[in-house]
Amino acid sequence: MNHCPSEDARWLAAAAALAARARPLSRPNPGVGALIVRDGRVIARGWTQPGGRPHAEAMALAAAGENARGATIYVTLEPCAHESQRGPACADLVAKSGLSRVVIGCMDPDPRTSGAGIARIRAEGIEAEYLPSAACAQSLSGYLITKRHGRPEVTLKLALSLDGCIAMASGESQWITGPEARAHTHAMRARSDAILVGGGTFRADAPRLDVRLPGLENRNPQRWVLTRSTAPEGWRALPSPEAIAGMEGILHVFVEGGAQAATTFLAAGLVDRLLIYRAPVLLGGRPGLGNFGLPSLAQAHGRWHMVERRQLGSDTLEVYDARNSNES
Amino acid sequence: MNHCPSEDARWLAAAAALAARARPLSRPNPGVGALIVRDGRVIARGWTQPGGRPHAEAMALAAAGENARGATIYVTLEPCAHESQRGPACADLVAKSGLSRVVIGCMDPDPRTSGAGIARIRAEGIEAEYLPSAACAQSLSGYLITKRHGRPEVTLKLALSLDGCIAMASGESQWITGPEARAHTHAMRARSDAILVGGGTFRADAPRLDVRLPGLENRNPQRWVLTRSTAPEGWRALPSPEAIAGMEGILHVFVEGGAQAATTFLAAGLVDRLLIYRAPVLLGGRPGLGNFGLPSLAQAHGRWHMVERRQLGSDTLEVYDARNSNES
Repeated sequence: MNHCPSEDARWLAAAAALAARARPLSRPNPGVGALIVRDGRVIARGWTQPGGRPHAEAMALAAAGENARGATIYVTLEPCAHESQRGPACADLVAKSGLSRVVIGCMDPDPRTSGAGIARIRAEGIEAEYLPSAACAQSLSGYLITKRHGRPEVTLKLALSLDGCIAMASGESQWITGPEARAHTHAMRARSDAILVGGGTFRADAPRLDVRLPGLENRNPQRWVLTRSTAPEGWRALPSPEAIAGMEGILHVFVEGGAQAATTFLAAGLVDRLLIYRAPVLLGGRPGLGNFGLPSLAQAHGRWHMVERRQLGSDTLEVYDARNSNES
Repeated sequence: MNHCPSEDARWLAAAAALAARARPLSRPNPGVGALIVRDGRVIARGWTQPGGRPHAEAMALAAAGENARGATIYVTLEPCAHESQRGPACADLVAKSGLSRVVIGCMDPDPRTSGAGIARIRAEGIEAEYLPSAACAQSLSGYLITKRHGRPEVTLKLALSLDGCIAMASGESQWITGPEARAHTHAMRARSDAILVGGGTFRADAPRLDVRLPGLENRNPQRWVLTRSTAPEGWRALPSPEAIAGMEGILHVFVEGGAQAATTFLAAGLVDRLLIYRAPVLLGGRPGLGNFGLPSLAQAHGRWHMVERRQLGSDTLEVYDARNSNES
């Protein structure tokens, strides 16, 4: 049977968008999305549930019931091949579901599954295909980076003026960006497992570092401060950027500043993604970054790749990914 | 007879685009554009010629000849009411042309014409209408600012990294932006009457400050350096930003940097337009602006209004106008 690759890619992107619902509460499991499709229509969907189980495929198959027979499942990550006390291996569920086709957007780097999931499905005579999907890889970035590099994904937020400042020369900094940009920051916190600030920002802004979005008050991430001292109550201390490797069960870290913490993470080469909120003001004040030890201009180029730009009120949000940090 | 205002506005915008051909060689006269339209088709066009004469209306009417009879002329600026040794008043030419209608995008602040041009046309029984056009005001910004403030329009160029730097901490700065952005800068020079740099930039970069675009080599603008000393050969000395009021016959000044000159012009409140070329790099180096004496964050907001954003290779060009600096 012939399939249309661009249509398959669109279904995978839709599954990736659905997977956003799993983040961050699926941690430490990846937030996966699954769509069961028949004749160009979605008949069931699922995403990883809070705590990591049930998995997306199990949710979608349970919703589809007998209707799964002969249909296609689009899943952002290779179905797992390992059983657990908390549920059967998804590859077995899929193999026995009556589905006629499986399309996978990312292979699972977990050695218990990697390749074994797709093999087990094919062994049952079901057509199973890996169609590399940038949208799926993006939606799984925290998981993929954690598996590859042994540390969570780091997103660095910079809220800057046109001239790259985070404060006036006097130190005045509230507010540079507007309410839409600040609400977006709250949403980013709600999607993160941990936020991190430097010591100076902690002392200046600690009370603000929570999620204040209706219905998402329970999404407050772990709060970390970059310090070699003891952490204040309600906070955890990170002695160095490299110590993120020891954060337990954390896939996504959101570094909120200030300039010193941002500089330290860049100097360590530990920033995967930049979120730049840019306000249409000139300040001539305090720079958002210090010297992070760039060896030459040539090495500055080609490192950051814009993946998104959008308007937030009068501010602009630009998102840049570090190249080569999160391929699957 | 009923006319469609949005159609009129589009013809005025087309005349404003045509007026760009007049810039900068029409100086010290404004670069005006004129379109003669009949039944929805352009039958003739004109723009201010090098040296300032003939005017746009005279060019368009000469091209139209007898075909002007009964047609409409769209002109970016009110036809002049003053005769000169170099030609008749355009208001008289228009009044005697047989045109049936005149649509004007900007009234002329020159007291010899202001309102007198349109009145003279109406006195001949020709329908003449002023339809305020932002595109026309924009195309005449240098002229309007000169008439209103007694000094040329100032465009400040900033070629910045994402974090607002113009060089690495080491001073290395070639190149932050790519060839497309640098070619655009050459085109901006070719459209300017004068370029200006600070002393440090002069010493570092003087040889580069020319127009290197095929066919535009004759467009090299006057070269000015911000200094209280004597100017080097081939250059003129500007002792302070305020001294731009004494630049003879100059409508458009392009301030190319460096940080000190940019800061000095902003501190003087003498920047009408920002051109920000932004490269997708982080530098953690030398800031593009110093402290220009902003009194409060509240006063930073609302001052700069984005009028254009476009991609130039991997760089982004953003153009911001200062509010309230160039209304007609």
